[in-house]
Amino acid sequence: METVSDIASSILNQFQKPTLAFLIGGMVLAAARSRLEVPEAIYKFIVALLLLKVGMSAGMSVRSADLMALLVPAVMAIAVGVGIVLLGTVTLTRIRGVAPIDGYATAGLFGAVSASTLAAGMAVLETEGIAYEGFIGALYPFMDVAALITAIVLARMATARRVAAAGVSPDGTMVLGGGRPAAAPGQPGKPGLLKTILLDTVRSPAISALFLGLAIGLLSKPESVYQSFYEPLFRGLLSILMLIMGMEAWARLSELRKVAHAYLVYGLSAPIIHGLVGFGAGLIAHHLTGFSPGGVILLSVMAASSSDISGPPTLRGALPEANPSAYVGTSTGIGTPIAILSIPLWVALADLTIGLG
Amino acid sequence: METVSDIASSILNQFQKPTLAFLIGGMVLAAARSRLEVPEAIYKFIVALLLLKVGMSAGMSVRSADLMALLVPAVMAIAVGVGIVLLGTVTLTRIRGVAPIDGYATAGLFGAVSASTLAAGMAVLETEGIAYEGFIGALYPFMDVAALITAIVLARMATARRVAAAGVSPDGTMVLGGGRPAAAPGQPGKPGLLKTILLDTVRSPAISALFLGLAIGLLSKPESVYQSFYEPLFRGLLSILMLIMGMEAWARLSELRKVAHAYLVYGLSAPIIHGLVGFGAGLIAHHLTGFSPGGVILLSVMAASSSDISGPPTLRGALPEANPSAYVGTSTGIGTPIAILSIPLWVALADLTIGLG
Amino acid sequence: METVSDIASSILNQFQKPTLAFLIGGMVLAAARSRLEVPEAIYKFIVALLLLKVGMSAGMSVRSADLMALLVPAVMAIAVGVGIVLLGTVTLTRIRGVAPIDGYATAGLFGAVSASTLAAGMAVLETEGIAYEGFIGALYPFMDVAALITAIVLARMATARRVAAAGVSPDGTMVLGGGRPAAAPGQPGKPGLLKTILLDTVRSPAISALFLGLAIGLLSKPESVYQSFYEPLFRGLLSILMLIMGMEAWARLSELRKVAHAYLVYGLSAPIIHGLVGFGAGLIAHHLTGFSPGGVILLSVMAASSSDISGPPTLRGALPEANPSAYVGTSTGIGTPIAILSIPLWVALADLTIGLG
Repeated sequence: METVSDIASSILNQFQKPTLAFLIGGMVLAAARSRLEVPEAIYKFIVALLLLKVGMSAGMSVRSADLMALLVPAVMAIAVGVGIVLLGTVTLTRIRGVAPIDGYATAGLFGAVSASTLAAGMAVLETEGIAYEGFIGALYPFMDVAALITAIVLARMATARRVAAAGVSPDGTMVLGGGRPAAAPGQPGKPGLLKTILLDTVRSPAISALFLGLAIGLLSKPESVYQSFYEPLFRGLLSILMLIMGMEAWARLSELRKVAHAYLVYGLSAPIIHGLVGFGAGLIAHHLTGFSPGGVILLSVMAASSSDISGPPTLRGALPEANPSAYVGTSTGIGTPIAILSIPLWVALADLTIGLG
Repeated sequence: METVSDIASSILNQFQKPTLAFLIGGMVLAAARSRLEVPEAIYKFIVALLLLKVGMSAGMSVRSADLMALLVPAVMAIAVGVGIVLLGTVTLTRIRGVAPIDGYATAGLFGAVSASTLAAGMAVLETEGIAYEGFIGALYPFMDVAALITAIVLARMATARRVAAAGVSPDGTMVLGGGRPAAAPGQPGKPGLLKTILLDTVRSPAISALFLGLAIGLLSKPESVYQSFYEPLFRGLLSILMLIMGMEAWARLSELRKVAHAYLVYGLSAPIIHGLVGFGAGLIAHHLTGFSPGGVILLSVMAASSSDISGPPTLRGALPEANPSAYVGTSTGIGTPIAILSIPLWVALADLTIGLG
Repeated sequence: METVSDIASSILNQFQKPTLAFLIGGMVLAAARSRLEVPEAIYKFIVALLLLKVGMSAGMSVRSADLMALLVPAVMAIAVGVGIVLLGTVTLTRIRGVAPIDGYATAGLFGAVSASTLAAGMAVLETEGIAYEGFIGALYPFMDVAALITAIVLARMATARRVAAAGVSPDGTMVLGGGRPAAAPGQPGKPGLLKTILLDTVRSPAISALFLGLAIGLLSKPESVYQSFYEPLFRGLLSILMLIMGMEAWARLSELRKVAHAYLVYGLSAPIIHGLVGFGAGLIAHHLTGFSPGGVILLSVMAASSSDISGPPTLRGALPEANPSAYVGTSTGIGTPIAILSIPLWVALADLTIGLG
């Protein structure tokens, strides 16, 4: 009973969260034609700070984890993150009318992880008295970063291929858009393309900031600056980013009219399918290394969740052409509530297959 | 005796407050021809953050108030806020040489409320053991927002009329100035003008941010982001805004040479006259709904006070052509000390008219 | 024994500090050709906030000190700060291939004071039970500001002289560089030059912010805004500045190839020589006013240290043409560890010359 009310209050909180309030606020301002704007310089700086924080936080949690015990579950987490995005490639992005870049961005967000959904999952396990490994928090960046990078690289390759197919000269700026200086993507189809896009992705401001944060978290001791600056400012800066994304989402909402049903179906079904993928990967780790049933459940919860923290700034920074109405709307509006609702499913499934304690 | 020393220390604190120190600091830098400048992007972002905070804070205090008990006093607070600005229309803005826009901005600031003067009033009541309603804090945004919006709309209408009288084509950008894109104000004198200016005011960055904050505070639960970000950054960002306004005030100080006496007379007399208006409105609420004597005193204190928090960023954002030497100087330099000094007057008046006990 | 391990852990911490991690991170990003950038508006604002904070902190510590007792040691601290930079003029800047502006910036940083090295020195004295004056913390801004201003003025005079010698017309923008509007420096060699450069230095954004902070800290009560805003944001903003300086340092590292040995020799020997200068000045104050042996030791520690807080933003703001690879690299990478290692030397020297206790 407590679990049911926990889940209900998790969902309710999701809809009263400032994150969503600022997103809707931005849409209302855009609809009312307000002249409020966040200057470009501020926007760039906010994205850099958010991703430095996300990276540092992940790096510090990996640094303090037992790296040997982490190895197999981390490989599984990476595989699940990549797999979810590949699954999106053969489903969402194939639907007529869905812009490939929007499809990849949405799949990337569903492959990435929601820290708050994961926290809800941990709360359920604690209520039920089910044990899990202490390093679970350190697994999350592996799935998260793998999914986001895969989605960004696939989206950029699709853009490059489409440009080549259309016979347009593969000029860097036109192909990769967003007005940012970009390496020329080489001849499409040639083996150099993937390498060019990978390098270009790693050099993009968003991914650079994420990796820099990861490296600083892993290799130095940024705790003092993290706790005095990056951590306390995070929620507020995210609220501003949500405001910006809401304004933009409103401006581009009409693009989605014809394909809204595709996002609806994806948002409703993806968390369950992804959770099953995560459960399967967890079972393999369970049989290989004795990964606990609680750990298997939490790997499923991570896979079922879609990112509300690391994902939006990363995608907004690295794929500025993608439509936030599609990916943020599908994820925050549909995917996250379904992911929270599905938590008891993974508990029941673990009980049926490998037993709980 | 304690009350006297409380008031004395309130006034002393007012003059040692960082707000005033940064204002004077900005003036000194400008006088010394320093090249220190706050970039435009930063300035715009600071104004947006300040007004989001002011709005959220007001929205949250209204959300947690008893709306029925609040109704009559809130209507009175709105009436007082509007009334004070209208009073300024027939006094300050009519003085030869006072630029109408500066007169309206000054009247708007005197109609808006100083949270710290209100806090000083509450401290006096607590020292004297006089009770007041718990929802008083939620009254303050009604007077504040009503006065600021009235002042901005009147100032813009005056500008539109002056432009029409001068036979200049009513081009939006020229009429409303500040280099911001603005809706064309329509044919001056036609019934559409007020609506156009109201819409344009609501869409201005400053008022949009204020209303967005109000809506988020009223309708969602932004407490987490408010307490971790907007609240702690507020004083610091205000200090930067004061620095900017100080620099600007110095550059435009000479404009005031001929009419300084008008602002001096207004700054000395307005708090007393406005406090009496507030006292009258409070008496009406007392007789209609049993509004407490303590509440009547605090409504007078609010009316007598002039804004040091919500006002400067709102006016600087919405009326960039107004001269901050006029409105900030008159309010912070003269109005606020007089308002604090007048607190015992409202206590005595309440004792004489309706009794304290 | 405890002292030895204290010093060892101080040095180790120095290398794991986020400051250094962000500096190296910026270099790695630049080396990997990342497109991450911090917008110019943000950079300018960060420098202003950092120097307002440094100034306020110094102003507040001087305000709460006993000004009479402070007088002689403060004059000594100023003399040491100026003297160290003048020493750099006849050594580092004379080496063939060392750009004079880089030499002055490096000497300025070594003349300025590291608050954390000073704190390490205080910790050693407390472990050893050696008493020192309570106003020591208020001495530090005198040496710090004197050294930085001297370095900036000397660097600008050298630039003006070089331009004159090269027969280039002494146009302000060309002479003082950095794309900033600057007062024309007058005819080089004429008596007006020093005055022009001093005025121009005081009006530069960095020094203006530092002096404004000093004045606000000295004359008003900024404690509330300092503790809620400037102090908590400081470490984080410094980390961003370090990131920017790292990127820039990488881009200009090649300039140093031929003269790296000069900076190495300077970085290794300067802390010891400067510490001796500080010790001598302390001895004079000891004989003139009974300045304590602990105070003499701490004056030596200040002189031996090089700035990691006030220096980099001041120099980056006031001398944008100087190469941060030279001054930040020499100071953070070599000077600071040597300064920390030399602390026991000053304790021993004080014991030998004037006795401890």
